[in-house]
Amino acid sequence: MPVRKSLPTALALGLTLAAGAHADEGMWMPTQLPELAKPLKAAGFKGDPTDLANVTAPPLSAVVRAGGGTASFVSGDGLLLTNHHVAMGVIQYNTTAEHNLINEGFIANGRTDERPSNPDFRVLVTVGFDKVTDQVLAQAKGKTGRAYFDAVDAASKQIVADCERDGSVRCSVADMYYGTDFYRISQLELSDVRLVYAPPRAIGNYGDEIDNFMWPRHTGDFTLLRAYVGKDGKPAPYSTDNVPYQPPAHLNMSIDGPKAGDYAMLAGYPGITYRHRTAAEFASQIDSVLPRRVELFQQMIDTIEAATANDAQAHTRYASQLQSLKNNRKRAAGELEGLLRSDAKVQRAADEQAMLAQADAKYQADIEALLGNLSQGAAVGERTLLLDQLAGQSQLLRSALLLERLRIESAKPDAQRETGYQQRDQQLIEGVLKQVQRRYAPQVEKALLTRLLTRYQQLPDAQRVPEFDAAFGRTGQALANALDTLYAGTRLGDESERLSRFNAARTGKALAADPLIALAGPLVAAQLRMEGESKAREGEQLRLRPAYMQALFAWRAKQGRAVYPDANRTLRISYGKVEALHPRDAVNFDPVTTVAGIVEKNTNAYPFDAPKPLLEAIAKGDFGTTADPVLKTQTVNFLTNLDTTGGNSGSPVLNAKGELIGLNFDSNWESVSASWWFDPRYKRAVHVDMRYLRWLLAKVYPAPALLEEMGVPAE
Amino acid sequence: MPVRKSLPTALALGLTLAAGAHADEGMWMPTQLPELAKPLKAAGFKGDPTDLANVTAPPLSAVVRAGGGTASFVSGDGLLLTNHHVAMGVIQYNTTAEHNLINEGFIANGRTDERPSNPDFRVLVTVGFDKVTDQVLAQAKGKTGRAYFDAVDAASKQIVADCERDGSVRCSVADMYYGTDFYRISQLELSDVRLVYAPPRAIGNYGDEIDNFMWPRHTGDFTLLRAYVGKDGKPAPYSTDNVPYQPPAHLNMSIDGPKAGDYAMLAGYPGITYRHRTAAEFASQIDSVLPRRVELFQQMIDTIEAATANDAQAHTRYASQLQSLKNNRKRAAGELEGLLRSDAKVQRAADEQAMLAQADAKYQADIEALLGNLSQGAAVGERTLLLDQLAGQSQLLRSALLLERLRIESAKPDAQRETGYQQRDQQLIEGVLKQVQRRYAPQVEKALLTRLLTRYQQLPDAQRVPEFDAAFGRTGQALANALDTLYAGTRLGDESERLSRFNAARTGKALAADPLIALAGPLVAAQLRMEGESKAREGEQLRLRPAYMQALFAWRAKQGRAVYPDANRTLRISYGKVEALHPRDAVNFDPVTTVAGIVEKNTNAYPFDAPKPLLEAIAKGDFGTTADPVLKTQTVNFLTNLDTTGGNSGSPVLNAKGELIGLNFDSNWESVSASWWFDPRYKRAVHVDMRYLRWLLAKVYPAPALLEEMGVPAE
Repeated sequence: MPVRKSLPTALALGLTLAAGAHADEGMWMPTQLPELAKPLKAAGFKGDPTDLANVTAPPLSAVVRAGGGTASFVSGDGLLLTNHHVAMGVIQYNTTAEHNLINEGFIANGRTDERPSNPDFRVLVTVGFDKVTDQVLAQAKGKTGRAYFDAVDAASKQIVADCERDGSVRCSVADMYYGTDFYRISQLELSDVRLVYAPPRAIGNYGDEIDNFMWPRHTGDFTLLRAYVGKDGKPAPYSTDNVPYQPPAHLNMSIDGPKAGDYAMLAGYPGITYRHRTAAEFASQIDSVLPRRVELFQQMIDTIEAATANDAQAHTRYASQLQSLKNNRKRAAGELEGLLRSDAKVQRAADEQAMLAQADAKYQADIEALLGNLSQGAAVGERTLLLDQLAGQSQLLRSALLLERLRIESAKPDAQRETGYQQRDQQLIEGVLKQVQRRYAPQVEKALLTRLLTRYQQLPDAQRVPEFDAAFGRTGQALANALDTLYAGTRLGDESERLSRFNAARTGKALAADPLIALAGPLVAAQLRMEGESKAREGEQLRLRPAYMQALFAWRAKQGRAVYPDANRTLRISYGKVEALHPRDAVNFDPVTTVAGIVEKNTNAYPFDAPKPLLEAIAKGDFGTTADPVLKTQTVNFLTNLDTTGGNSGSPVLNAKGELIGLNFDSNWESVSASWWFDPRYKRAVHVDMRYLRWLLAKVYPAPALLEEMGVPAE
Repeated sequence: MPVRKSLPTALALGLTLAAGAHADEGMWMPTQLPELAKPLKAAGFKGDPTDLANVTAPPLSAVVRAGGGTASFVSGDGLLLTNHHVAMGVIQYNTTAEHNLINEGFIANGRTDERPSNPDFRVLVTVGFDKVTDQVLAQAKGKTGRAYFDAVDAASKQIVADCERDGSVRCSVADMYYGTDFYRISQLELSDVRLVYAPPRAIGNYGDEIDNFMWPRHTGDFTLLRAYVGKDGKPAPYSTDNVPYQPPAHLNMSIDGPKAGDYAMLAGYPGITYRHRTAAEFASQIDSVLPRRVELFQQMIDTIEAATANDAQAHTRYASQLQSLKNNRKRAAGELEGLLRSDAKVQRAADEQAMLAQADAKYQADIEALLGNLSQGAAVGERTLLLDQLAGQSQLLRSALLLERLRIESAKPDAQRETGYQQRDQQLIEGVLKQVQRRYAPQVEKALLTRLLTRYQQLPDAQRVPEFDAAFGRTGQALANALDTLYAGTRLGDESERLSRFNAARTGKALAADPLIALAGPLVAAQLRMEGESKAREGEQLRLRPAYMQALFAWRAKQGRAVYPDANRTLRISYGKVEALHPRDAVNFDPVTTVAGIVEKNTNAYPFDAPKPLLEAIAKGDFGTTADPVLKTQTVNFLTNLDTTGGNSGSPVLNAKGELIGLNFDSNWESVSASWWFDPRYKRAVHVDMRYLRWLLAKVYPAPALLEEMGVPAE
């Protein structure tokens, strides 16, 4: 990344930002932090930035992936802190008819009482992070399109295979800056993880969906786990002979709490962002993709509601699909609302225009080619969405497409099969085929397909697919006839019919005749062709985006700003401060909440049903050393302007001295659009104040041994 | 009011309030303000408090009753400022197929274009306010119960008759401090009132039900009217010959706007409060009345929803009744929530206990008798509510009861009939009988009556009424049989059957036979008996409450506090300040909103469908002299801690110099319980900033002549 290295060090980044720059935006690779020494110091960081550069050394080596999120070691004996919602599977797994650990919470009575996690729960400790760009791109150079894609794919697979050869680590290759750089990541995979401490659901998920994305918040969304390894110190499956893992580092909990303006930083594994996408992609997202999703999801919602209005059984069967559509619709609408509020399209376009105006001429051809390529993908955007939903919103049609694709993939050696159709995926496929009965009603599926395919029929010719036209015709009448015939004739509504074909498909054998299976033949062939076209476009993007990124590096350097890679589930650091939120005219939210809010929200009914011991402890007011010295009461959650996204759940929040002050668990609703655009006015992250955790463990659901293990007072 | 007069003048009331006293609580009679000179000055009032004492002299003579609320004169030519929602009937009356003045708004093109109000709209200008306590109580002394009630009632009616004899004014007698003092109020009744200026509904009622009771608010809830009189200056019915009324005073609009901490005061006609009710009445309200209402309204809601679930026509017919029940339920629940949040029961009980502990012995017997009397009323509280709802929630049963009562009352001379059954009420009764068709479905009415009467059947014997027991039996089976028989046999479902009986009833003649009419005979007889019992209890309360109030005056004087009478639709003044709201943990609302909030809330769909001219003017940012000098933008609404209740709609808000700065139009949701308990932490009133009105009239929907008439700049 030569551009970043050429940054004029005299520029105090945090202090001389150009207009429009965001002081607190950034999910930085740890290796970037030494370059950010000046803004880090200016923001209030008291430590040495070079200490943060190495993901395999303390303190970052204390930060791990866990479940779908992040966790951190908080003792030398493998004690792990993460969110209640990240550890929900572990808690659920240990719930029995006698002991509902979700509702009651759990405190292990000593280490022998710590409970095993569900078998698929994993903790990944990063032990290697190395640039492998040259290796990945060696065979790709000179190629284009699909060939470029395949060369990168093959090189990456080779690097992973080499890395995993001795069996000690799990490896992956991460693409940084959209094809510009590649890193090999090696991780220890710990599978013996145990439940140590969980608060009751009414603390860990106080407010549930009503408060989700909301601030002010009053949720104790944390759980403590412990990682175990074999007596040799190496990862091992669960065994009573295992011993606590001795992590390379653990975080120290602060005694002091956060207050407005305090420096804060966070480390974690953010999922995916789109911040460095082109202005055209922003415009497409705002003008087409999101409005289209809102509209289509609403149509699906209306269709299901109308088709189940007078059929209680169908209503129940589609309840989960309906809820999921409503969530997706709300999310897309919120993202659109946020991007419009931030005027992101105009701002991104102005920024890109300024960048292009002074970009090095050598990048010009590639950038132009990239923009052309992207417009090809955008041109088939509606078709892609509609065809995805054909399977996504149906049960029998999805089953037929799944079986046909499985049959095709199963004819290849396992390693060459498409992801999702390999041996290890077959249990999941079987599950999908088995759950049809609980989620299917023929009139609803036909109504949904009619809606989707009617929309498909209205697409311009350039987006049309001959196989789909042949299958469903080009008129409403033809479509109705096709669906009537298909659903009158198919036997896939019977579980045994599906499962017998599943057994054939997994061995690559021909499937017993059925109208939907017959239909799936040409449709899957068309899907495979479109997948190929898509991979060719992706290959070109992989080849061309680095030119765009280089122009961006140069432009940002001129502005005195460094560039972080868009999030991709690799370890990142954000820094910023504890900050209030002014979301709307005349509305101001404090950055710290207190237990008074728990009482105010409490209705004694789910989801605001705070446990009696908590309410009594609040009424008693015995907050001891965990009370805030200024507020004179117990704090609960706090708010920072740290840059986060999905995957940052469970990220530790550190103060200027690198001590643990919080646990990230959510964002505010106004920042749902931050995956595309960071707006410093609205982007906030929501954390559990570690003083609340300490108070709960000291006074409400006591676990003094754990407090001692974490090195903090037990009162 | 000897106690108030004996207040030690050395006590600076606003500065030496005892613990628990509320600096800003109080709906003062204007005559009390000279006594409040010190706290008024301390609060920041710059004028002479004695100027505020006379309701018939400037500036209070500018404040009038209008429709269901308050208005004020804002020019020497009878221009009146009130709320859009207070003047809604006037706007609606002038709406035609061509011109929907509700949606479009209205600007009169000169005085000849000003539009007449609906015939029943009245403006009342207070021209006399005199104490008549001795006269009212002269014949009541020595009497008790019903006789006391009747003596007060007769004396009051005589005073009104004497006062209205020359036909120039309309009079009433107001009871202050619950029977302690009585005032004769004389008012000019202006019936020629015309519409001058109304903003579009999407300004005047921006946000509608969603924003109702909410803060932050962005509503231009104002309308300008003009009062006209005959050429002789006397009230006259509408005529094109009439001339603008020259009011005894008008308010001057301030050029400056409000900011946090500024002194503010408000004058108006607040409806009803219960602040000086006994601790037992508070306890009953919180423990019984409100929970019972919430529960019963919810049962009615559930009953209607269940009974109309599969009947679209019935669903439509009961939509309005259902909405009304939901509003009433929400309101009762909100009041209960507020009283619980403020711990009003405990606080009121502690206050009363302290008062009683040092009350003069001479009051003791009356106070004890009062508390005994109140408990009698409370003991039949559930029965009263249930029997009220029998008529309130039904159509045919209500019709039968109404017809029977009308028949009985119509046999008396008109003046002696019960209010509601006089000649002038008959049109309303006919309307009730006619609307049955649009609001009735037999299975829903039976379901509602079954629910109410089942609850009635469960009442203890002491609350039972023989006539109702005889009519509906004492078991579920008997009730079902009775309702089945009644509704199978009645012909009151036909409009002609109801109206022919109406024609008989209004002349006191016997009603044609019908099962529901036959039932109504004994039921109405029982109602009349219970009404008599209730009036006897009321008479006793009228006799006994003054002792309680005297004890309260003495106790408050000891605390250094004056006592205002509970609100009773007479002219009152509140004073306090512009103040922010901190309603919940970590939530802070500014006391002033700006046009930015209109844009933020706007969805282009009702009720957040700001008109295009408004949005364009906001985008243009041309706020001229009406912009806030600190915020540098246009303000919209503001918040004070002024003491208000229903009836204060349209009240003018004045600054320390007595200039008009705002127009009261709502309260915040947290203060819905303020009719019983003023909690200074939560009680706020919501006002239109007069700078917003000026900006709209200057730049958005221009009316420069009106601005000139009000003496403010037209830009």
